[in-house]
Amino acid sequence: MRIGAIEAGGTKFVCAIGSQDGEILERITFPTTTPDETLNQVDVFFREHKVERLGVGAFGPINLRAVSEHYGTIGKTPKLAWRDFPLLQDLKSRLKIPVFIDTDVNVASLGEYNYGVAKDAGSCLYITVGTGIGAGFVQNGIIFQGYDHSEMGHILIQKHPEDSFEGACPSHNTCLEGLAAGPAIETRYGKKSTNLADQDDVWELEAYYLAQAIMNYFVILSPEKIIIGGGVMKQEKLYPMIRKQFINLLNDYIEVKDVNQLILAPALNDNQGVKGAIALAMQE
Amino acid sequence: MRIGAIEAGGTKFVCAIGSQDGEILERITFPTTTPDETLNQVDVFFREHKVERLGVGAFGPINLRAVSEHYGTIGKTPKLAWRDFPLLQDLKSRLKIPVFIDTDVNVASLGEYNYGVAKDAGSCLYITVGTGIGAGFVQNGIIFQGYDHSEMGHILIQKHPEDSFEGACPSHNTCLEGLAAGPAIETRYGKKSTNLADQDDVWELEAYYLAQAIMNYFVILSPEKIIIGGGVMKQEKLYPMIRKQFINLLNDYIEVKDVNQLILAPALNDNQGVKGAIALAMQE
Ligand SMILES: Nc1ncnc2c1ncn2[C@@H]1O[C@H](COP(=O)(O)OP(=O)(O)O)[C@@H](O)[C@H]1O
Ligand SMILES: Nc1ncnc2c1ncn2[C@@H]1O[C@H](COP(=O)(O)OP(=O)(O)O)[C@@H](O)[C@H]1O
Ligand SMILES: [Zn+2]
Ligand SMILES: [Zn+2]
Repeated sequence: MRIGAIEAGGTKFVCAIGSQDGEILERITFPTTTPDETLNQVDVFFREHKVERLGVGAFGPINLRAVSEHYGTIGKTPKLAWRDFPLLQDLKSRLKIPVFIDTDVNVASLGEYNYGVAKDAGSCLYITVGTGIGAGFVQNGIIFQGYDHSEMGHILIQKHPEDSFEGACPSHNTCLEGLAAGPAIETRYGKKSTNLADQDDVWELEAYYLAQAIMNYFVILSPEKIIIGGGVMKQEKLYPMIRKQFINLLNDYIEVKDVNQLILAPALNDNQGVKGAIALAMQE
Repeated sequence: MRIGAIEAGGTKFVCAIGSQDGEILERITFPTTTPDETLNQVDVFFREHKVERLGVGAFGPINLRAVSEHYGTIGKTPKLAWRDFPLLQDLKSRLKIPVFIDTDVNVASLGEYNYGVAKDAGSCLYITVGTGIGAGFVQNGIIFQGYDHSEMGHILIQKHPEDSFEGACPSHNTCLEGLAAGPAIETRYGKKSTNLADQDDVWELEAYYLAQAIMNYFVILSPEKIIIGGGVMKQEKLYPMIRKQFINLLNDYIEVKDVNQLILAPALNDNQGVKGAIALAMQE
């Protein structure tokens, strides 16, 4: 069986054809312009490759309330052309195959759970630290979801006493995303984050916030693996800084055998989204 | 069928006999002394009433990792006589009936989910604010658990800029429990919390912390109902204060139709523990 996969992002749609064991056979990228233009290209690609099912990891917010008549519809996104667009319905009526959808981070988490660093674990939390911050939790192969999908990037944490930045989240100012996503770093220091690479204090502060967030996710969800990806984590020195601060914060309250095996980088090399979408399509 | 239920607390064991529809037929309380003394009394009570299954909501920490050979064993509790005590095994070998165990808050959550304020909802988070702070999440009738049980009371939140209290959690100082559990309130003000009833600023600060915690639980778990119980919540003015501060913090990021239907007091009148234990015993 040939399976279609989309990682539907705010700047590009990554489309792939996969095999049932998660191998990627083809991969192509289309820019995210208008729904009509982007989805016409998507449509042509998947018809050509005769896929039988499709999995989608989508940017949000997206309605994922099982009971809703708007299930699979994009919500109040700043990308106005996509606001209220019924993405799931549109793909179904174009392709006439089963289509399955979830948030980009949930699907990335499913990818790492099935084929990546968490493939031998019972659960994993996948956190992305990029333009925004989000996280998805997978346990026993199932994407965690409450009444609606999680918005884990918007938790409130302790602000560093010497950080005078007023925060960049339009809704909460100093929530985690407002203090620690890429744009927050760049606004705080007035520089591109790549130009801050040598400044250790920048990344110690970043680790201070991410370690707190991980502490909160850890005591609430108790994941077996915690994977942190996204553009900001290209600064690889963050991993040891985060591990150290997390262990200090946790202070042995819960036993962690080896923090190097708990907090990890992604393994799928920017393919966690499409690989997760393949797994999603096969799941149901 | 007659079902046994225990709410095993640090000061007392509440034991009950229930019917299959969650009705309590008998109820008795034994002080928590040594395992041997307390469990002898428990044993006699349940044999007398010929229960066929037993559900237990236990104080912790308790090992609930399905794969562990110490499943159901008490961990590093300050109650030294109970440290490393194999509670589940002991009850099973005494009574020779199926015994099911989970944390006190998880079981209380199951009680409210099945018979209380959340009985028509798909999920509920039950928070207790007492000597400690803990919370349990039930979704579709199943108690949520990751690799190990949650320790939601120990999340980190923003400290109030005018609160100079150094925090009361022996492990994390100013985690939620360290700032907002009963002993934290009493240490901060040097008075019994019942003697602070008239001081509005005390409860506004308490609501400030609890509203942040609820914000974090809400964006991570997306529960349909949030129930707050425990000794501190006897100050009923806290409910409207918490609702108001939570709605301000959330700032419409996620739609909440009616916060009065989201954040609620428990309905089971201190029986959520034993009622939840009845439900737990029938579940598996
Ligand atoms: N090498 C890098 N070092 C630090 N930050 C980076 C680096 N590359 C990208 N970023 C940050 O990551 C953000 C983009 O995140 P990314 O995950 O690539 O995209 P998105 O979140 O939009 O999918 C930018 O805001 C930028 O600040
Ligand atoms: N009426 C009250 N008003 C405010 N706080 C109270 C009240 N009653 C008890 N408390 C607080 O609640 C705590 C006990 O919580 P409780 O839930 O009754 O017990 P536990 O958590 O030990 O099971 C005490 O620390 C006390 O500070
Ligand atoms: Zn926010
Ligand atoms: Zn703590």
